[in-house]
Amino acid sequence: MEFRNVLAKRRMVRNYTSDPLSRELVDEVAAAALRAPSAGNSQAIVVVVVTSEAKRLEIASVADEQSYVDAGFDPWISGAPAHLVLAVSEKIYRDRYSEPDKLGPDGGEIEWPVPYWWVDAGAALMAILLAAVDRGLGAGFLGVHSLPELSRIVGLPDDFQPIGVVTLGHPAPDRRSGSLDRPHRRPDEVIHHEEWTE
Amino acid sequence: MEFRNVLAKRRMVRNYTSDPLSRELVDEVAAAALRAPSAGNSQAIVVVVVTSEAKRLEIASVADEQSYVDAGFDPWISGAPAHLVLAVSEKIYRDRYSEPDKLGPDGGEIEWPVPYWWVDAGAALMAILLAAVDRGLGAGFLGVHSLPELSRIVGLPDDFQPIGVVTLGHPAPDRRSGSLDRPHRRPDEVIHHEEWTE
Repeated sequence: MEFRNVLAKRRMVRNYTSDPLSRELVDEVAAAALRAPSAGNSQAIVVVVVTSEAKRLEIASVADEQSYVDAGFDPWISGAPAHLVLAVSEKIYRDRYSEPDKLGPDGGEIEWPVPYWWVDAGAALMAILLAAVDRGLGAGFLGVHSLPELSRIVGLPDDFQPIGVVTLGHPAPDRRSGSLDRPHRRPDEVIHHEEWTE
Repeated sequence: MEFRNVLAKRRMVRNYTSDPLSRELVDEVAAAALRAPSAGNSQAIVVVVVTSEAKRLEIASVADEQSYVDAGFDPWISGAPAHLVLAVSEKIYRDRYSEPDKLGPDGGEIEWPVPYWWVDAGAALMAILLAAVDRGLGAGFLGVHSLPELSRIVGLPDDFQPIGVVTLGHPAPDRRSGSLDRPHRRPDEVIHHEEWTE
């Protein structure tokens, strides 16, 4: 699909048909994460693909899906045929920036004015969300609040921190998030020229 | 361009021809940031487009471009006809999550296990980097270490924190970053199934 169309079509899909996805297709979408940049080429993102029903139900449970369903929303987590758990290791960045070519002016590890591991995780997330659209699928993203539980479910090592779950499947009609009632910011509110202007 | 080709072609371009870019083209690339998702639809990213030579030289100076040039690299910051300064406001997220539909179980603002403003900034960054490729341009990203200086140059309000500068232009041959000598991780090192495996 044309990039412009992929970008224009991307939205959080919060309901899926029960059609299963081939492992190959899910892996193609997940592999988009490898095309995201990382500070110092740290490459510290991992994706755990979950398709087993037992684990998907467990993830839906720690995300408290039932409260969404009770509020009239679709069971978009348990109903997604694949979950992609994204995680990143701050430690890998710190180790990378302890290598000789990355030390700060004082010879020690730099200060991190911005925790670039989160920024890079967001870049990988966006690559995955767009790749899903390109493959004719829909994706959602859930920043689970019980992240330690999510870590346990997929067995992440201690130095990896999950950022949440990408739900993946064939789109079904869904109830929109209430957040989408907030007005969409216009380009002239987001893009400034030469310097900030109100 | 096809999405797959855009994703495959994306790389950090660290040298540009002196050809100027039309304001329309730069704004199109910057506007890709508006297509990135944000937690609670907070929409707290701004892009300051800098094309004035004086400001670009100032940004190159706070980024200590000269030390890169002295080390044999191209003047990829001052030489880029446009700089896109990306910034995000944590405050907007906190205000959004103080609204009634986003309060935590105890009725107060949620804990933030992951600072999603950085994640979302990374998603916007990726959208911009890919949009540049789609428009036949090259883009680089510089996580400037003197971010307070960068804020001052583009006049950001106090509650906005820049994550760095996207350099944008027509690609010229460049000297690769030493970080690219690090081996590229294979898909089977990044993508796990059902649970983490070594």
